[in-house]
Amino acid sequence: MIILVVNVGSTSLKFRLFSMEDETILAEGKIERVGSSSSPFSYHYGKKEKTVDMIECPDYRTAIKQALDTITDPDVGVLSSLDKLDAVGFKPVHARNIADSVFITEDVIRAMEDYIPLAPAHNPPYINAFRIFQKLLPGKPLIGVFEPAFHKTIPDVAYTYSIPYEWSQKHSIRRYGFHGASHRYVSVRAPELAGCHQNNLKIISCHLGGSASICAIKNGASVETSMGFSPQSGLPHATRNGDLDPFILLYIMKKEGLSSDELFNALVCNGGLKGISGTSGDVRDLEKEAAEGNARAKLALGVFVHETRKYIGAYTAVLEGLDILAFTGGIGENSSMIRERICQGFEFLGIQLDRKRNNATGRELLISDDKSQVKIVVIPANEELIVARESARFLASSGH
Amino acid sequence: MIILVVNVGSTSLKFRLFSMEDETILAEGKIERVGSSSSPFSYHYGKKEKTVDMIECPDYRTAIKQALDTITDPDVGVLSSLDKLDAVGFKPVHARNIADSVFITEDVIRAMEDYIPLAPAHNPPYINAFRIFQKLLPGKPLIGVFEPAFHKTIPDVAYTYSIPYEWSQKHSIRRYGFHGASHRYVSVRAPELAGCHQNNLKIISCHLGGSASICAIKNGASVETSMGFSPQSGLPHATRNGDLDPFILLYIMKKEGLSSDELFNALVCNGGLKGISGTSGDVRDLEKEAAEGNARAKLALGVFVHETRKYIGAYTAVLEGLDILAFTGGIGENSSMIRERICQGFEFLGIQLDRKRNNATGRELLISDDKSQVKIVVIPANEELIVARESARFLASSGH
Repeated sequence: MIILVVNVGSTSLKFRLFSMEDETILAEGKIERVGSSSSPFSYHYGKKEKTVDMIECPDYRTAIKQALDTITDPDVGVLSSLDKLDAVGFKPVHARNIADSVFITEDVIRAMEDYIPLAPAHNPPYINAFRIFQKLLPGKPLIGVFEPAFHKTIPDVAYTYSIPYEWSQKHSIRRYGFHGASHRYVSVRAPELAGCHQNNLKIISCHLGGSASICAIKNGASVETSMGFSPQSGLPHATRNGDLDPFILLYIMKKEGLSSDELFNALVCNGGLKGISGTSGDVRDLEKEAAEGNARAKLALGVFVHETRKYIGAYTAVLEGLDILAFTGGIGENSSMIRERICQGFEFLGIQLDRKRNNATGRELLISDDKSQVKIVVIPANEELIVARESARFLASSGH
Repeated sequence: MIILVVNVGSTSLKFRLFSMEDETILAEGKIERVGSSSSPFSYHYGKKEKTVDMIECPDYRTAIKQALDTITDPDVGVLSSLDKLDAVGFKPVHARNIADSVFITEDVIRAMEDYIPLAPAHNPPYINAFRIFQKLLPGKPLIGVFEPAFHKTIPDVAYTYSIPYEWSQKHSIRRYGFHGASHRYVSVRAPELAGCHQNNLKIISCHLGGSASICAIKNGASVETSMGFSPQSGLPHATRNGDLDPFILLYIMKKEGLSSDELFNALVCNGGLKGISGTSGDVRDLEKEAAEGNARAKLALGVFVHETRKYIGAYTAVLEGLDILAFTGGIGENSSMIRERICQGFEFLGIQLDRKRNNATGRELLISDDKSQVKIVVIPANEELIVARESARFLASSGH
């Protein structure tokens, strides 16, 4: 079975082509700055080196066409024709009432449109991409492995919000959770890497990146996660608020004379770590600025570490203990400093970091001390593989 | 030094008169249903039994006058004149930029007016009561032991919200914290009751009542608390939401066509446990309904326990361990079932409840097993004593 996994950004397109028999990557590529006059297109296949060309890519349709043409190109392609492709898999973020893998249909697109207010940066480019694929690959199964899918095992006491129940029912308001492919990959890979094979394994997965979420995983299933109804919740993110005292919003709307849309735009673009620091939401910038003595950059990092530590504590309560603490995502994979600060003071839970191991970066790592009761691991995100696996599983189970 | 402590409710007035040399209660009383045609007035002093009379109390001024007349009454009074009174102490909830004990001045009243939107049920009756006391006791020190006072030791990483920093600065938006007198009393009484006298003692204080908050206390000082900018935050309360994904609010406003005021009124009156159950926010009612098989009452209790457990886990992370877990407030003092459910599954932290001890209620209790590393205590709230102490301390330190 051949699955093309496509990651849709607002101005970028990434793709990875899998042969599912042995989960080989046949080819992969990335087109950036879509819509500008000159877009870098990197591509490689087989054991070949990566090539980077500048291409003309005025719109998203051209980007998709370029990807499909390349993988079937007589010279650099790896498929004789697009007929060889069994399905295209995606990890769209959010659609009303969908917490699973589904074929992309008109109903699904409508459900995504309904949740554009909750995922304003994500849903419109995905909807656009689906329309283009429907035209370029008519009849080809397009599969959405929606991010909340991994979290559908969260129990009612964790997904129910303390708002009038009728609203929860009528508007499908609940904790959905996101970064599903990333947390699912951790749920599979962390036990292998840590060498833990007992039943009822308790894992906390920290997906820390520009967008960040934490997930409590028991016996392979998500039982709680920090993101809730929208991806703007839970932990503070690079430029987005996390959970808040709602009366802050009411007070600011009144005092600043803002409409609700104006307020929420500000919170999404100028909240989070950028809001606190005033300069950047990128942890790399903040680490540099903090080292140079910038107090607000230091505060932003401090808040991020503090909030992450609170979630880890809270999720040990949910899991009733902890076996593996896993870090993934851009920050989780690359910032040894943030990992060290998060782990500090958790000795009472049996979490003991090995500082030397922690200072290596960029690949799979076991960074706990040999005496640590809790294994600490770093796992580079591999969401594409999960999307490929889930797409293949879904395709097989649906009789294709 | 003689201090009168007055607890101002919307339709009730409670008072307690202290002689501070030995912290004796000279007299205490309560007037309920103020504003109705017949108000029960209970009173007792010295070793006398409590008397209950029905009095005519059409407004709050009459209630205050009744209290002052009674404590100076030739028959049942305990002061020869109001001149003997050194100060009147209060525990008002919230005022802009005030996180301490202060004399009630015009500036303070204006700062309280500014925060009426954040404490709509609390600030107006307090402001009204202050005006009446100013007229009835001209020149007498009125001292506000503001609830956030105990929380002013919370560090910046815990009090800073992930919103644009300019808004935090301009509008004094930060984690204030409430139930200060209650958590302060726990910080003093819990170590005595648990027999713990080490330095850097780590306490989690669970004030669970119609309004609920949790506080992490290190070495006697609050270092983090669940309520933030307003008292409608943190844990879910009886009828009020706790912290939320802000995009829930945006979505409901749009879908239900509500103004922000309509939305927030609904969240304050019909959110929280009442919102989930649809019947009641009172844990006593919910326990009864759940026992009769009401699924939503059961869910409401489940959410309350789940969220409380997450805060306890989070605050062990903040404290880097735990020595004492304390329960106070109406639910904390009286619901052995809720206490048991909260403690279940925390054995990995060294929390072991003694079920038999836990089934006693209504007074100070040590309810942990003798083998439990963490001492678990039940402490009836005694906020009046703290207000009296803080008022006396403030009066002495200000040169009176």
